[in-house]
Amino acid sequence: MNSSLRGATSEPERESCRGVRFTREGPVVTATLCRPKALAAGSVELMAELRRLGRALPGDVRVVVVDGKKQACCATFRPTVDDGDAVVLPPAEMEHRITLRQEAIDWLEQPDLVSIAVVRGRASGVLLQAALACDLRALAGTARLAFDEFRRGPTPELGGTKHLVDLVGYARALEICVTGREVPASEAERIGLATTVVAEQGLDAAVHAVVAAVVAAPRDAVIELKALLAAAGRHSPAQHLAAEREAAVRGARSTAERGE
Amino acid sequence: MNSSLRGATSEPERESCRGVRFTREGPVVTATLCRPKALAAGSVELMAELRRLGRALPGDVRVVVVDGKKQACCATFRPTVDDGDAVVLPPAEMEHRITLRQEAIDWLEQPDLVSIAVVRGRASGVLLQAALACDLRALAGTARLAFDEFRRGPTPELGGTKHLVDLVGYARALEICVTGREVPASEAERIGLATTVVAEQGLDAAVHAVVAAVVAAPRDAVIELKALLAAAGRHSPAQHLAAEREAAVRGARSTAERGE
Amino acid sequence: MNSSLRGATSEPERESCRGVRFTREGPVVTATLCRPKALAAGSVELMAELRRLGRALPGDVRVVVVDGKKQACCATFRPTVDDGDAVVLPPAEMEHRITLRQEAIDWLEQPDLVSIAVVRGRASGVLLQAALACDLRALAGTARLAFDEFRRGPTPELGGTKHLVDLVGYARALEICVTGREVPASEAERIGLATTVVAEQGLDAAVHAVVAAVVAAPRDAVIELKALLAAAGRHSPAQHLAAEREAAVRGARSTAERGE
Repeated sequence: MNSSLRGATSEPERESCRGVRFTREGPVVTATLCRPKALAAGSVELMAELRRLGRALPGDVRVVVVDGKKQACCATFRPTVDDGDAVVLPPAEMEHRITLRQEAIDWLEQPDLVSIAVVRGRASGVLLQAALACDLRALAGTARLAFDEFRRGPTPELGGTKHLVDLVGYARALEICVTGREVPASEAERIGLATTVVAEQGLDAAVHAVVAAVVAAPRDAVIELKALLAAAGRHSPAQHLAAEREAAVRGARSTAERGE
Repeated sequence: MNSSLRGATSEPERESCRGVRFTREGPVVTATLCRPKALAAGSVELMAELRRLGRALPGDVRVVVVDGKKQACCATFRPTVDDGDAVVLPPAEMEHRITLRQEAIDWLEQPDLVSIAVVRGRASGVLLQAALACDLRALAGTARLAFDEFRRGPTPELGGTKHLVDLVGYARALEICVTGREVPASEAERIGLATTVVAEQGLDAAVHAVVAAVVAAPRDAVIELKALLAAAGRHSPAQHLAAEREAAVRGARSTAERGE
Repeated sequence: MNSSLRGATSEPERESCRGVRFTREGPVVTATLCRPKALAAGSVELMAELRRLGRALPGDVRVVVVDGKKQACCATFRPTVDDGDAVVLPPAEMEHRITLRQEAIDWLEQPDLVSIAVVRGRASGVLLQAALACDLRALAGTARLAFDEFRRGPTPELGGTKHLVDLVGYARALEICVTGREVPASEAERIGLATTVVAEQGLDAAVHAVVAAVVAAPRDAVIELKALLAAAGRHSPAQHLAAEREAAVRGARSTAERGE
């Protein structure tokens, strides 16, 4: 990542392209996944680049938009091939490399970021996994989510099997993965896999409206909100009320400290 | 709460109004949230009143209907304002007061009650939080659920962030809260936020039908049923089968003890 | 179960009928629930037969189709009646018998099987419980799922209260069970209770397509996939990424060992 991302500017900035291109406008970073052929040949480089972005993200970035260009991004992890090795790695080394790949995407779930995936065409591979890891998914009406990799083995290891279940439940997730079919945008919206579906000419405006809403809300309020919503599914009612109390006390005190 | 709630009567009884009015008909208590201006000025009193209702609820009450009149009920907790204090409270005292407020609503989840929210107009604030805490939500076709408070901070602390995730999942919950938008009844039904949506002239009859079904079922069966369904999401399959076994044994023995 | 199930054959084989009939074609076993009158009189025998099937299932069976014929299968557990006892059993004995009944169905959740329920008419009782326990549910357009038993007490103890919540969420589950109503196929599809709804003449072909997709995928990949999806709801994000790593390492090593 270029260190220029550290300063907010009104003009977009561009990074050199290794399959992903970063731009920043104030508190909003856009990661554009592009160049499918480069991706197919170089997923290790792409994943390393995404991981670097996550680690180096300045604290004043509040929204990350992952924008998949119309071409499919199909890089899938094949431990013995993608990494350029002809031999199978020892398990510990293999786990280490997978962890690094997971870190290319898992920061999209950080509570201090709202992450939005934009899918314009057919999404599979890394683009699909990143879209599933994002908080929200905006799809063009012609978009398709392609799950053929989930049944081929080894199972994609970028968190998608959990994100999919969280979005559509176990039964629908299994049906989609085991048949490996494509989910069209209209079905994705109906079953909750897409947050919103918009005709392509209106897609950027729809995403911009959500981004603007996030940025207009107090930063601390959005962080507490995301953390509470993300933890809710694993909390008992009593645990969650306790978490809400703690958040409310933190919020009231920081409001007071700002002298409001 | 008036102690007359303790006896079942065929005629409705009325309590004096501090923003909420209680009536009881046999095993059914209705809490009508009304007088939005009084609410806006006096949420502490309202919450104390709701809390008293929950604590004093006779054991033979089986259904609670929370009925929001058409006007919005917008009382939101602002620790340094609503309680009439100009200073920020110490954290322990603040937590204590929030706990009392949570107890105004959390009894709606008790396994021995089936709670039904009726939303006729725009619901936000305490009415929205209570509607989310209820087991079931019946909406008029013109109802709207307004989530603008969730993004302003501090996050509402009445359990709504968990109830919303349980109803519509994390992604939809975040989108709704972070944009702070209104969810119309038709969308609420589609995504599972409303249990049922009925044209306003048919709303009371629809609610009455559900109430009648609950009251017609054996009390113990409904209690075991609600407890099992409420715990299911946190149980592993094996844990849940064990819970079902225990409930079945309890049920068979109490049936036998009644000599059926 | 007849031991002939142990060998794969191209011709279907038939078992004698005690309310359930087993056939096998290669890696696919079909359990047809039939003869509703026999079922109503003999649920103990049926449950024992299903339990035997689960225990004796050969390791090379990959798909189980539970096919409910058009008539309702209404056998419900009544501890003091169904088992032919006039007296209430001691709790430990009652729990033991319920465990045996649960084992008639719980093997449908094994990770090495994909289980598909086919519902053609009105499903209640054991057929409904088995349909809820299956991974996927294919319904004819005229099918109905009847939940009247859930509110009568004792609560059915075959896992249905958890499966229903996993499929449609707590609020919809409670509304359906407490009113005891029938859910028609169209609503079942909309709320996620059915995986697919097809006009009856196309139902067998639709089921066959899913079965063919499962059988065409590598066995190990489907097993890892089902296990990951089934555990996802109880995992934190970090726990799930760890589980995906372990599955990926296992998958890569077994691929390498096969010399691919």
